[in-house]
Amino acid sequence: MIKKIKIITAPIISLLFLLSMCSASNAETTISAEGQYIFNTLAFYIGSVLVALMAAGFCMLECGLVTTKSVSTIAAKNVGKFAICSIVFFLFGYNLAYGIPEGGFIGTLEIWSTNSNIETGYSDSSDWFFQAMFVCATVSIVSGAVAERIKIWPFFIFAALMGGFIYPISMGWQWGGGWLATLGFSDFAGSTLVHACGGSAALAGVIVLGAREGRFGKKGETKSLVPFAASSIPLVTLGTFLLWFGWFGFNGFSQLQMGTFDDVTAISKIAMNTHLAGAGGVVTGAIVTRLLDRKTDVVMMLNGALAGLVAITAEPFNPTPGLAIAIGSIGSLIMYFGTKFLERRGLDDVVGAIPVHMFSGIFGTLIAPITNPDTYFGTQFTGVLAVCSFSFVLSFIIFKTLKATVGLRISKEAEKLGTDVAEIGVRAYAIRD
Amino acid sequence: MIKKIKIITAPIISLLFLLSMCSASNAETTISAEGQYIFNTLAFYIGSVLVALMAAGFCMLECGLVTTKSVSTIAAKNVGKFAICSIVFFLFGYNLAYGIPEGGFIGTLEIWSTNSNIETGYSDSSDWFFQAMFVCATVSIVSGAVAERIKIWPFFIFAALMGGFIYPISMGWQWGGGWLATLGFSDFAGSTLVHACGGSAALAGVIVLGAREGRFGKKGETKSLVPFAASSIPLVTLGTFLLWFGWFGFNGFSQLQMGTFDDVTAISKIAMNTHLAGAGGVVTGAIVTRLLDRKTDVVMMLNGALAGLVAITAEPFNPTPGLAIAIGSIGSLIMYFGTKFLERRGLDDVVGAIPVHMFSGIFGTLIAPITNPDTYFGTQFTGVLAVCSFSFVLSFIIFKTLKATVGLRISKEAEKLGTDVAEIGVRAYAIRD
Amino acid sequence: MIKKIKIITAPIISLLFLLSMCSASNAETTISAEGQYIFNTLAFYIGSVLVALMAAGFCMLECGLVTTKSVSTIAAKNVGKFAICSIVFFLFGYNLAYGIPEGGFIGTLEIWSTNSNIETGYSDSSDWFFQAMFVCATVSIVSGAVAERIKIWPFFIFAALMGGFIYPISMGWQWGGGWLATLGFSDFAGSTLVHACGGSAALAGVIVLGAREGRFGKKGETKSLVPFAASSIPLVTLGTFLLWFGWFGFNGFSQLQMGTFDDVTAISKIAMNTHLAGAGGVVTGAIVTRLLDRKTDVVMMLNGALAGLVAITAEPFNPTPGLAIAIGSIGSLIMYFGTKFLERRGLDDVVGAIPVHMFSGIFGTLIAPITNPDTYFGTQFTGVLAVCSFSFVLSFIIFKTLKATVGLRISKEAEKLGTDVAEIGVRAYAIRD
Repeated sequence: MIKKIKIITAPIISLLFLLSMCSASNAETTISAEGQYIFNTLAFYIGSVLVALMAAGFCMLECGLVTTKSVSTIAAKNVGKFAICSIVFFLFGYNLAYGIPEGGFIGTLEIWSTNSNIETGYSDSSDWFFQAMFVCATVSIVSGAVAERIKIWPFFIFAALMGGFIYPISMGWQWGGGWLATLGFSDFAGSTLVHACGGSAALAGVIVLGAREGRFGKKGETKSLVPFAASSIPLVTLGTFLLWFGWFGFNGFSQLQMGTFDDVTAISKIAMNTHLAGAGGVVTGAIVTRLLDRKTDVVMMLNGALAGLVAITAEPFNPTPGLAIAIGSIGSLIMYFGTKFLERRGLDDVVGAIPVHMFSGIFGTLIAPITNPDTYFGTQFTGVLAVCSFSFVLSFIIFKTLKATVGLRISKEAEKLGTDVAEIGVRAYAIRD
Repeated sequence: MIKKIKIITAPIISLLFLLSMCSASNAETTISAEGQYIFNTLAFYIGSVLVALMAAGFCMLECGLVTTKSVSTIAAKNVGKFAICSIVFFLFGYNLAYGIPEGGFIGTLEIWSTNSNIETGYSDSSDWFFQAMFVCATVSIVSGAVAERIKIWPFFIFAALMGGFIYPISMGWQWGGGWLATLGFSDFAGSTLVHACGGSAALAGVIVLGAREGRFGKKGETKSLVPFAASSIPLVTLGTFLLWFGWFGFNGFSQLQMGTFDDVTAISKIAMNTHLAGAGGVVTGAIVTRLLDRKTDVVMMLNGALAGLVAITAEPFNPTPGLAIAIGSIGSLIMYFGTKFLERRGLDDVVGAIPVHMFSGIFGTLIAPITNPDTYFGTQFTGVLAVCSFSFVLSFIIFKTLKATVGLRISKEAEKLGTDVAEIGVRAYAIRD
Repeated sequence: MIKKIKIITAPIISLLFLLSMCSASNAETTISAEGQYIFNTLAFYIGSVLVALMAAGFCMLECGLVTTKSVSTIAAKNVGKFAICSIVFFLFGYNLAYGIPEGGFIGTLEIWSTNSNIETGYSDSSDWFFQAMFVCATVSIVSGAVAERIKIWPFFIFAALMGGFIYPISMGWQWGGGWLATLGFSDFAGSTLVHACGGSAALAGVIVLGAREGRFGKKGETKSLVPFAASSIPLVTLGTFLLWFGWFGFNGFSQLQMGTFDDVTAISKIAMNTHLAGAGGVVTGAIVTRLLDRKTDVVMMLNGALAGLVAITAEPFNPTPGLAIAIGSIGSLIMYFGTKFLERRGLDDVVGAIPVHMFSGIFGTLIAPITNPDTYFGTQFTGVLAVCSFSFVLSFIIFKTLKATVGLRISKEAEKLGTDVAEIGVRAYAIRD
């Protein structure tokens, strides 16, 4: 329930601890404390590298889905956010999340510092690194939704506030051992704490910014999507694959320990279920677009994969593989109809981040009680509501404040030229056939 | 010889087992059964992630090599196949392969279910995951060869049958402990069981479908390749690199165990030999095109890498590094002349999958006896013939049946428009300079 | 200090060795020699795969930064160099570096051969593989700088000489235990031995080749960069991300051991510091271009990341995370002004390899004494001077010799057509909107 577990090696406590953890198997492990420390640290390391892949994945996905006029900007936003979020999480975020008192609401404003010892059970730096990659993933979700019209520096300010404060605070409620953890909320790797949190912030941004010029016609009018065509489907596909592979680490190593039979077995089952949920999402995306739209829409297959992966993230261990496929499939369906819903409401989410991460993330969190007997629908609902509201309201206030002060949206002339020319000064492609 | 090895911990059997396995070294290991279980499961995990990279690699390679009109379709086919194959391997394939009686021909039609315990030596889910990634790789081989003219849903049906039945059945003959294993056939990581199997199915598809409109002129006429130019060489290169890195896991972790001195030493040697075979393939591709075609053809260098990697896959442990370079080089040569041969026969393999995977795979399998004294040319030949015929004949029947019923090939008008417009409704690139 | 450490298991020596190494912690480890062997070999393996990613990263970065006429050539050069360097490092390089006598200048001309045993502490093949990936990285640095005008086969000859001789010899001075190691030089993962070495060779190449036709105007004249626009910013970004992730292995696993509490803790801290230095580099690149050039230049953010990563490579363990951010930031500043400096001197470094790898690498090496009390500025300066001069002078001689014999630069007509048409015969993009 708490994402940071300490292995206390004082013999008796340790034994009790192990007994409580390993109820389904033999409690004694043959691995020494040092051996476990190495395995756990290695798990964090591999997990960090895999979740880091997701930063490249988000970047490629967004580069591919925006129009050709905004690709350099998306690249700058993604690499900038990767850097900024890591720095603010070091300066502020980590201890705001993990310095929280038991059952509390907020941690302390302290710069992270290392203090690894064998009793912790893993290297502090490896834990920081893994958590930092989660921050970057959360803020990535916003980047694509608000593309093609947000100014780059206000976006960076938002990224710093989201990565340093919004995400760490609400994530600490659960993974830091705060009030949601005390309440009994359950969200294994972050369907809500990461994905719906990021998606809620994206929704706030999309509302405050408004749609791209010319994206939606007058009420009821069907607009051609041609001027808003995705710049590169191969990059969208590459991005989705990288995100998918990153998810093996995102979910698998949220187990946080690898030094026992039980832990490594859990990691494996989680990785398999995660994969199958993504697979279910793809197949559902293919079928539903073929049946309802008469074309097999590759973008909906790819976003279907992501929606499936988001849906399984809250509870990837307990479902059977068959159920994992079903959960991924339903997540994909929710994404499909959610996309249509946003379009009808005139909400211009450029890459579909809100239906993928927020709608499917909420779904995944709410259904955890179906396979996890220790969770309750009411508690899950409370957690979702708390995290989403917190993220949405704070993001809304920040975006509104930025709009009223430094300005949030580029000018109409700049938008016609594209953000790449207006803000970055570097065209994304100079391809001459 | 059998890809799924159980570590039986009953002390005496275990000792005998270890003695028989580790004949070249000290039989006793200092690692506890739980420690080995963790190492083995971690090996499967890392291997799975690396082989998963190959799915992205195949996709990028194929996106790059097809013409610009068929790139979205290739993306959809690759991500769709990744999902479909995983699901059918869970539903049918795994137990068709591994439920086989000793020396038998076919396993059981049972959904895969987990049953991890420390005696197995590794987590069942991790084993499933690793094998599932092999299924996806096998079917990927077909996707590129039949590009630009196959309908997408018939391809998905074929992928389901290949991933759920054809590959698992013939692979089970060897890695499940079936009749080929009993016979003494040897194919360490699948030059034949994966690559030639996939290549044979691709050949069947190419024959049944026929060439792209206008690809070949009348007999003896030299046709310009311009209208069939590869859409993006950087994506082909990226794809090749991803496949190459994936091969470190594909071959290395086909050792299946990492919990002893011998196993981890073998994994390292295999990874090094695999890398050097790929290197040999590249250099040979560069030299041969420079000498024979007067240009240093980058595509032949990249396909040369893949052909080298395929060739070493049957026996990556025994060769010296120098021999590994030689094997990779010859694989590359075979690929080069194989490509010319197919072109002369009017067989339109869009990405060169048949010469890379089938021709070089057969070569690699047949030469295993040179470095592995426990194998015989006759047995190797039998294995190659059995697997390739099985895959070719069944694939041929399936493609013919699809052609006769739901239709296999898009219309001439659709082909002129390209599969992206006709089938997916999303153009791959909207790049405005 | 010496990159190849042997764990001697004779009990007394081993104890002394461990005591000397682990001065800051408990000397005794609970991991058996076999357990350590597995962990160390696995560390090499993961490190090798990550550093291999850098080959793809360099390739994508360079494909994106060159003009559209030279992309296929860059792809061919990168995959060719990956192959050639691996083969020559096997044939010549490894033992030139590691066969060096203590305090000596050069090793032996012997083909590498394997001889793994448990006393070595890791598999020989895994060590070879890891070091081979470093060779490939070093030579990659040259490839981008000399792009768009060098002939491909002379480049391959240079790559063979650099990967087989120049880099291994000077690297052996330190990591092989040669004279620089004896002197007390310190360069943990290769700010100088890899990056400044590669950058010095690139500088020699750029000087000998001269600038691309039309790149620079007459003295004082400002030239439009439009005809030299980067072909694809998303590929540059992808390449940078891949390099960044590769650096987690490049620096982290240069610890070379993972089988104790101290080692795995060090790996984690190194990976974190490495990441934060890259982050500092990005943010600095964004701020400095926004302030000085009025646009937030994405290429300078990406090269800023790389310069930050290069700067921390000499000493990634000792700095605090805050200091790591500062070191990365200064590295990025040096790269920015170094780029301007080269441009003013008419030196045409197509991708910015010299400021990123040479200038920032020298900086990182020289400041090691700030955080590492065992190093001295004078020794660091000696090491930098020795390695850079050796690499520059030998490269200069090789390039001059190639120019005088087989010819180094393509003809003016070929340069107008682009290297892709002239040398490879395959256009990089055939994208029709």
